[in-house]
Amino acid sequence: MTKQKRTVYYLSDRTGITVETLGHSLLTQFDGIEWETVNVPFLDEVEKAKAVLIQINQAAKRDGHRPLVFSTLLNPEILEVIKQADCRTFDFFETFIQSVEEELHRPFVRMAGRSHGFQHHLSYFKRIAAINYVLAHDDGVNPKNFAEADIILVGVSRSGKTPTCLYLGLQYGIAAANYPLTQEDFPVMQLPKVLENVRSKLFGLTLSAAQLHSIRQERRPNSPYASLAQCQREIQWQESLFHLFDIPCLDTSRISIEEISATILNRCGLKRQLYG
Amino acid sequence: MTKQKRTVYYLSDRTGITVETLGHSLLTQFDGIEWETVNVPFLDEVEKAKAVLIQINQAAKRDGHRPLVFSTLLNPEILEVIKQADCRTFDFFETFIQSVEEELHRPFVRMAGRSHGFQHHLSYFKRIAAINYVLAHDDGVNPKNFAEADIILVGVSRSGKTPTCLYLGLQYGIAAANYPLTQEDFPVMQLPKVLENVRSKLFGLTLSAAQLHSIRQERRPNSPYASLAQCQREIQWQESLFHLFDIPCLDTSRISIEEISATILNRCGLKRQLYG
Repeated sequence: MTKQKRTVYYLSDRTGITVETLGHSLLTQFDGIEWETVNVPFLDEVEKAKAVLIQINQAAKRDGHRPLVFSTLLNPEILEVIKQADCRTFDFFETFIQSVEEELHRPFVRMAGRSHGFQHHLSYFKRIAAINYVLAHDDGVNPKNFAEADIILVGVSRSGKTPTCLYLGLQYGIAAANYPLTQEDFPVMQLPKVLENVRSKLFGLTLSAAQLHSIRQERRPNSPYASLAQCQREIQWQESLFHLFDIPCLDTSRISIEEISATILNRCGLKRQLYG
Repeated sequence: MTKQKRTVYYLSDRTGITVETLGHSLLTQFDGIEWETVNVPFLDEVEKAKAVLIQINQAAKRDGHRPLVFSTLLNPEILEVIKQADCRTFDFFETFIQSVEEELHRPFVRMAGRSHGFQHHLSYFKRIAAINYVLAHDDGVNPKNFAEADIILVGVSRSGKTPTCLYLGLQYGIAAANYPLTQEDFPVMQLPKVLENVRSKLFGLTLSAAQLHSIRQERRPNSPYASLAQCQREIQWQESLFHLFDIPCLDTSRISIEEISATILNRCGLKRQLYG
């Protein structure tokens, strides 16, 4: 098949997070298309919608295909303007909200910005507390507070501990600490002392030696630290350690921070929270 | 209306991020319902689906209402099992994918985990680089590298700079620095020296004095730092400064980190990237 070029619009009353998530998950199911993406958040006036309509029609002409338009527009007047453009519209609220209304036997409130908008005090504080915990317990700092962690990630340098902890804190309000396994721990097959009393909270991150090598090369090219042989030694050693101490672990070689985080929550039975 | 109690299930082949985002945005449009939420990510075997079916039926009996089930299941056999339960099912792929196929004149690949699963090397490195930049330039650290920032958030202590920078880095790959405005800057209506050459990158975060007071109380209860009078002085001063130096700013009092971040991207014309 020839490579199609198509334009996709993400239109939203507010942040655009919901509609981008939806469209992205659908479009990643199609190969061989070159996407030009246009994000239009905060589309909350009919005049703005008319300007977008003109843009969409220009894209249709340029591409020789009408654009795909994903939207979460709560204002029906704005949606009506967009529907007059030369495009295929997939509006998420329009598609589902009536069925949900029927099921719940009550009308929906039609208020924009509810999903990622209003700040709820209690959840705001919990979220900020989790982020502060993560920042104060990164890379083995302050191990005396490890008993308060929901989870403690362990792994060698560049195994993805820090980004995963940040994601767990921001997205799920999890107090996630992390502790690096370093060369000094190597010769003896022992857990670092500060981890002995928190063994049940440990979770290991591992990856292929080749991938670790490529990540470390990015950071310190051609250093002994980045060499494939060194990466192989460290990975082999840490996997033996995880096995010996019965520490659950995950191979992160081919998965995203989102998937690592969701897997950890699921396997450790941690309670997730959706913020917004 | 009496307060209904309803159970909602989020079922997914993989992380559950897409289905939770979509369901949450629909359900926040309904008031007066008490939700019991059950997340079932990594639902990838028929046997697991049969166990979920039993759970759903038990919830229906207990609540006296059938549960709402939101799903992004790519495996039709698994979805079929769930549909036999006493529930109302809203499957996002089933609802949209056929229309998208028609529009694109090609079949979808039906591969789970594409949206938040596979690691793409280039975007992984860019994302990690952004997170490292944020961590290395938090709270006024390393201002000599501010020229490399995509954006520099400024504001008084507890105005939300750090969580917003982390979100911008993690979610959008933005190199976001932040610099605190402190009492020493007060008497003189001048920008801190290190910010003079990067004025075009500055973005101010402000909030109501009452909200700042409540956030600081959480941190240092009944301190002079947290007093309402002090918060009022700092907010008034920083807003005058933003005005004097023509620094765009946002009142974050009632909005979430997601909305603050999306607003900054939109107003500053920064290019967002969706990862996964």
